[in-house]
Amino acid sequence: MGIPDEQIFPHATGAAEKTVADHQEPQELVFYSGWRAWIALEEKGIPYQYKEVNPYKKEAHFLGKAFSELSGGICSNSLAAINPKGLVPAIEYKGKALYESLIICEFFEDAYPSYKPNLLPLDPFDRAIARIWLDHISKAVVPSFHRILQAQDVEKQAVAREELNEAFRKVAKEVKGPYFFGLEFSLVDVAIAPWITRDYIIEENRGYKRSDVSDVWVAYTEEVLKRDSVIKTISLKEHYAEIYGRYLRDEAQSEAAKAIRAGRVIP
Amino acid sequence: MGIPDEQIFPHATGAAEKTVADHQEPQELVFYSGWRAWIALEEKGIPYQYKEVNPYKKEAHFLGKAFSELSGGICSNSLAAINPKGLVPAIEYKGKALYESLIICEFFEDAYPSYKPNLLPLDPFDRAIARIWLDHISKAVVPSFHRILQAQDVEKQAVAREELNEAFRKVAKEVKGPYFFGLEFSLVDVAIAPWITRDYIIEENRGYKRSDVSDVWVAYTEEVLKRDSVIKTISLKEHYAEIYGRYLRDEAQSEAAKAIRAGRVIP
Ligand SMILES: N[C@@H](CCC(=O)N[C@@H](CS)C(=O)NCC(=O)O)C(=O)O
Ligand SMILES: N[C@@H](CCC(=O)N[C@@H](CS)C(=O)NCC(=O)O)C(=O)O
Repeated sequence: MGIPDEQIFPHATGAAEKTVADHQEPQELVFYSGWRAWIALEEKGIPYQYKEVNPYKKEAHFLGKAFSELSGGICSNSLAAINPKGLVPAIEYKGKALYESLIICEFFEDAYPSYKPNLLPLDPFDRAIARIWLDHISKAVVPSFHRILQAQDVEKQAVAREELNEAFRKVAKEVKGPYFFGLEFSLVDVAIAPWITRDYIIEENRGYKRSDVSDVWVAYTEEVLKRDSVIKTISLKEHYAEIYGRYLRDEAQSEAAKAIRAGRVIP
Repeated sequence: MGIPDEQIFPHATGAAEKTVADHQEPQELVFYSGWRAWIALEEKGIPYQYKEVNPYKKEAHFLGKAFSELSGGICSNSLAAINPKGLVPAIEYKGKALYESLIICEFFEDAYPSYKPNLLPLDPFDRAIARIWLDHISKAVVPSFHRILQAQDVEKQAVAREELNEAFRKVAKEVKGPYFFGLEFSLVDVAIAPWITRDYIIEENRGYKRSDVSDVWVAYTEEVLKRDSVIKTISLKEHYAEIYGRYLRDEAQSEAAKAIRAGRVIP
């Protein structure tokens, strides 16, 4: 499909490296990196082929569409991205491409109904409530996480920290425990997990503390971090150090980094 | 449910006024304004009770949660809003509240499967493609529409105009005709309709021209404007003049207006 093997470089390390190695067989579903969709796949046990690509190869194509040179890869293990927008995650399903993490996750629910657990409630109203929280994560959690990461000035960091704490606190207030909706792990947990697994970066560099959010938050984050699907998709800390250094110095040129700098919506 | 009748002021005018009048009977679904959800309801013929509320009544409550004083109402006919975030549209379904226009629209699909037309494709992959376009409308069309509206400086207006044209052009390139997905009117058409019905404001004040987007765009917008559900939910032009004047002078204090000014995500 236009992606010569010589351009494919596996980058995952630690537990994630093993998960990648376990998913090299060709499948009808090809998966290109990205944490949320990966956690969803591991939760449901959907067969997939994991492909890592070299993000710095401008000439590479995916299904005939050029993808842009990438510089971020903050949320991925491969540092790669492959879709018309040049972002991961992306999938190829029976030869057709899809992107956007939460859209891909909803696609798994729709296309693989027999694979359990259901990550979205089946009741229409509860499903809508889940989507309201996904919307909150997209509009409040993710942008404030990026803002605190990129804020250089101490005062701006403090403002961003309070924003992020407040965004997390809103989630914590609704946590039924151990997971967001109670006993069932759901797409809300999947969607927020990558902002929990990497919060050590803002703890070490931006004065963030889980306990400043709330006690429920501390307990909830511990539960999420113990989840198998989350553990299996994490690379070693060292893996992310260089990438995060660029964010922390506000030098990153990823689409998200540029959007935050320009006061725009993260694509 | 805590909303005394004396606080309810019907504001819709023209065709919308008649539609409101036709939906005053109590129903299990109570609908509080907002164009997209309204178009979806009219498309599907779902029974609903339309309630308009006085936005300037701070003390008003909805299901026990205070709602904020509203000042915008740019997208609604009632100038009102009623949800924990203080935005319309909102619904009350069997006594429970929901908000966020596209989440409400997806809820109608899930909760009323026998009401036709289906506004989302039934095939999982096509459904995901629809959601990619809804995401594009939320992330690119809506913010650039707001930016061009609020831009004071001529140069900034020109930049915002090109951004908006480009966001519309991307949609136009995928239009199968007469509607986005071809013969079937879908949620993509619903989601973009309010940014077509009101484009005369940026045409009259910001130099926007449909023909600058593309020929397909001109043809597509004409089709959308001929759709019954769209016609039935439009108030008279005069109705919006005062509200839009505030946006055009960048004086509006709605959540969307403030977010755009601050370089933040529209809530
Ligand atoms: N809204 C998108 C965001 C995707 C995104 O920002 N992906 C990052 C990695 S997690 C990426 O590909 N960055 C490369 C770049 O921005 O150049 C989603 O949820 O899928
Ligand atoms: N993302 C929300 C936006 C809702 C929104 O901005 N609603 C406007 C009217 S269309 C509103 O209620 N404005 C009042 C305010 O911002 O104070 C949705 O799509 O439902």
